[in-house]
Amino acid sequence: MTAPASYEAPPAPAFLFDLDGTLIDSVYQHVIAWRAALSRLDIDLSVWRIHRRIGMSGGLFVSALLRETGRTLSGEDIAMLQEAHRDEYLAQADSVRPLPGAAELLAALTERKVAWAIATSGYRATAHHALAMLGLPADAPMVTRDMVAHAKPDPDLFLAAAALLGVEPQHAFVVGDSVWDLLAARRAGAIGIGVMSGGYGREELERAGAYRVYADPADLLARADEVGVRGLAPSAA
Amino acid sequence: MTAPASYEAPPAPAFLFDLDGTLIDSVYQHVIAWRAALSRLDIDLSVWRIHRRIGMSGGLFVSALLRETGRTLSGEDIAMLQEAHRDEYLAQADSVRPLPGAAELLAALTERKVAWAIATSGYRATAHHALAMLGLPADAPMVTRDMVAHAKPDPDLFLAAAALLGVEPQHAFVVGDSVWDLLAARRAGAIGIGVMSGGYGREELERAGAYRVYADPADLLARADEVGVRGLAPSAA
Repeated sequence: MTAPASYEAPPAPAFLFDLDGTLIDSVYQHVIAWRAALSRLDIDLSVWRIHRRIGMSGGLFVSALLRETGRTLSGEDIAMLQEAHRDEYLAQADSVRPLPGAAELLAALTERKVAWAIATSGYRATAHHALAMLGLPADAPMVTRDMVAHAKPDPDLFLAAAALLGVEPQHAFVVGDSVWDLLAARRAGAIGIGVMSGGYGREELERAGAYRVYADPADLLARADEVGVRGLAPSAA
Repeated sequence: MTAPASYEAPPAPAFLFDLDGTLIDSVYQHVIAWRAALSRLDIDLSVWRIHRRIGMSGGLFVSALLRETGRTLSGEDIAMLQEAHRDEYLAQADSVRPLPGAAELLAALTERKVAWAIATSGYRATAHHALAMLGLPADAPMVTRDMVAHAKPDPDLFLAAAALLGVEPQHAFVVGDSVWDLLAARRAGAIGIGVMSGGYGREELERAGAYRVYADPADLLARADEVGVRGLAPSAA
């Protein structure tokens, strides 16, 4: 008879979720808000270029913008842009909906005692309204831009979220809709999972390092066995 | 001395352009317009799912929608949806801009006597305002949804546009931003070229059959030598 192998059992993996485009359907409202903010400075940037930068840090967004438009912006202009974006976004926040399966996925993880947290490049002021929408209490585990030195694609947000849960990043899945999430996941040493609900295509997310790509949270919930979470999908219970 | 090879010289290639997302920056306005139209029937569809269907025929769009929502729509509902989409789009048409390089690319082709036409799944009522925006006369070569039996991804629009120019589709490049354009190009027997200005990523356009993918019309104009058009880029003149 063979003796049982001796090894240190790994802890159960935790889930670190991006917010916009991953749990709530807010990416296009952010795109429109940035476009309106930029037009206040007479900056016309093609809309797809704005879309591809949603979810990255506002500072990097503005740098990329300056490179493409050749404009110089004062510190005052940049502060005005960020404020205008926030106001324009909040004006449309009523039209933001949770993504299909988002609330159910978080509830199922909680019920299965799988640790999870939200890690968003957004500020608390714009992100907090998402919690109620997802059926979460105001003290649900969430790390926002205000709490770290650098936003995505720096790994800080995911490192802070893992620390909040008391897990090592290597034992966490990062779930996000953008290539910035997936780069931040790699830099944090976590495993990236992509969702297409923010508008990026499957191929782009895979090339950025996603281990698996799902349509949206409902699709991830239904196939959570593929990432090794047992008994999560309602039908598998 | 070697005798010159004997063969029938091919005609110069023509260009068949999609409109929305390819020549004008209107995709996100179409997305918002569809979302508003759908909400009149209390249909909440994730925004990215709407985005990925822009440029395909309205009939196929509605079928796909019915499949995903499980709803049944009456013929009256469908007519209302299409009309609501048109009204919501026209209400935002002021914010639509030509994409960088679009007017210059068409002007350069005209100057080099390279035949070109526009082939759009849109109706004349929504598409005609794009002509002035692109610096084109009202009689510029354009095939709209009203003029063919089926829109994209059926090949009819590109076949009709090639016929309008008197060229064989196999001697045409189809330039489009969506996978529907590229499928229609293949079915027409033309060579597809992708542009990322409608929001699809490079990988997705390549996998759908694009021979080359450019950022936008300005990028295509600057690198037109890659598709065998000589002397087009301003710097190469």
